Amino acid sequence: MSRITGRRRVRHIDGESQVERVEMLAAEEPLEIRVSGEPIAVTMRTPGDDFDLVAGFALSEGLIAGPGDLAGLRYCGGADADGHNTYNVIDLVFSGDAARLAPTISRNFYTSSSCGVCGKASIDAVRVRSAFDVSADDVTVGAGLLAALPDRLRAAQKVFASTGGLHAAGLFDAAGDMLILREDVGRHNAVDKVVGWAVRENRLPLSRTVLMVSGRASFELVQKAYVAGIPVLAAVSAPSTLAVEFAESVGLTLVGFLRGSSMNVYTGAERVRDRVGV
Amino acid sequence: MSRITGRRRVRHIDGESQVERVEMLAAEEPLEIRVSGEPIAVTMRTPGDDFDLVAGFALSEGLIAGPGDLAGLRYCGGADADGHNTYNVIDLVFSGDAARLAPTISRNFYTSSSCGVCGKASIDAVRVRSAFDVSADDVTVGAGLLAALPDRLRAAQKVFASTGGLHAAGLFDAAGDMLILREDVGRHNAVDKVVGWAVRENRLPLSRTVLMVSGRASFELVQKAYVAGIPVLAAVSAPSTLAVEFAESVGLTLVGFLRGSSMNVYTGAERVRDRVGV
Repeated sequence: MSRITGRRRVRHIDGESQVERVEMLAAEEPLEIRVSGEPIAVTMRTPGDDFDLVAGFALSEGLIAGPGDLAGLRYCGGADADGHNTYNVIDLVFSGDAARLAPTISRNFYTSSSCGVCGKASIDAVRVRSAFDVSADDVTVGAGLLAALPDRLRAAQKVFASTGGLHAAGLFDAAGDMLILREDVGRHNAVDKVVGWAVRENRLPLSRTVLMVSGRASFELVQKAYVAGIPVLAAVSAPSTLAVEFAESVGLTLVGFLRGSSMNVYTGAERVRDRVGV
Repeated sequence: MSRITGRRRVRHIDGESQVERVEMLAAEEPLEIRVSGEPIAVTMRTPGDDFDLVAGFALSEGLIAGPGDLAGLRYCGGADADGHNTYNVIDLVFSGDAARLAPTISRNFYTSSSCGVCGKASIDAVRVRSAFDVSADDVTVGAGLLAALPDRLRAAQKVFASTGGLHAAGLFDAAGDMLILREDVGRHNAVDKVVGWAVRENRLPLSRTVLMVSGRASFELVQKAYVAGIPVLAAVSAPSTLAVEFAESVGLTLVGFLRGSSMNVYTGAERVRDRVGV
């Protein structure tokens, strides 16, 4: 998968010195997502794990409720000027009940995601879309274990080390062992790839797990964790107001500013054991 | 604008110690963008400078070519459960030629942004959308001046200091003086707010300016700079492959990893004077 990175000649300047050198960059390419041949979305993503990305997107957006709704994923023939397949177009085919909804979804996808967008109303609209109740998940994790996750995430990031340009999302079990790692130029894509992996491996709900993300915790990341049944979301940086409100409303534990031995627990603190109990 | 931040009680853990304390968070709320009453997009954003955000979005997405196409922007009555306006819905009304296109845009906005998404094809599709030729901009900036911009950006970020949760985009003139600063939980929104400010102040094209962003340089950020006629984009972190390819194809100078006295110049190095010439 050489398309995950690209080499580029750059002029590196440091004070008075200048050198030309070759550096690695994280790849970014558009991915068009289709439902039964109809384009419904385009995302800028790092190529790789594309089927996971589309499956996770479909679950996060409520297009599917689980693996049973997914009949198939395939690359379309999207050729570039030289006639080569770009592998930048994926078609998603529903099965069962979802298949009957497909024409409606492709026609109304954007407008339905736009409706009722006023604060609480949009949170309520999202809430009904998860098949899982994370508030009932009685997993607990030690603060010391949480503090160790950023280093474990970073150590597993192969591409970041060479490019500095990729976000990561890692799923851990309650013992701190990594189940899966996904990287992408987009934070949301990295999480969609983790969730889509679980969809395709038939592992939903992701009970008793911790999702660790390299950046900040936005509303949409909390939403993606919730839809996959993940009870604990930990982020290296800050959450937003809406991320915290939503996490609280669905009973999800949200941890932020996870740096060194310190962290902030914003919601669901009952799942975080103090350090003595690690 | 107290909605830019929110207070939240958190449990702060550091090693063996735990305290409950109040922290400030960056606000995040949905903004629905309508064209002549028809919903076309929803973005999660930090409230504030919303008209700038919508005007910049409209320019970036090719809905308008400049201020002349913009007849008006207004908050719609989007009431919450208590009957209060949420200020989370903005209606954009076109004037002149753009008005005739409005029904088509609202119907085809998403599908048209999805078409021809295969690598080079999508770059070509974007290229025709800028009214300005940044490759002809003969501005030069000293490397020393560029090296000073991250500190100037950070010093001007009022909300970041208290929340740690906002991205910033700052527009500077060739002497390094800041023209405008905008902050948002989303990197793209921060840039749209800068571009939209320029639209509404009738300052397009933004010739002889430098746009400094707090995060990484994605394809879409380079695209937004290009559409506004900005010749130099500088980022604290890494660019992606497509960001570099696109910047090169339109003659835009792209600088990344701007840290301390060092930086990488990826494209348009002729605009960056060496340090002696600062």
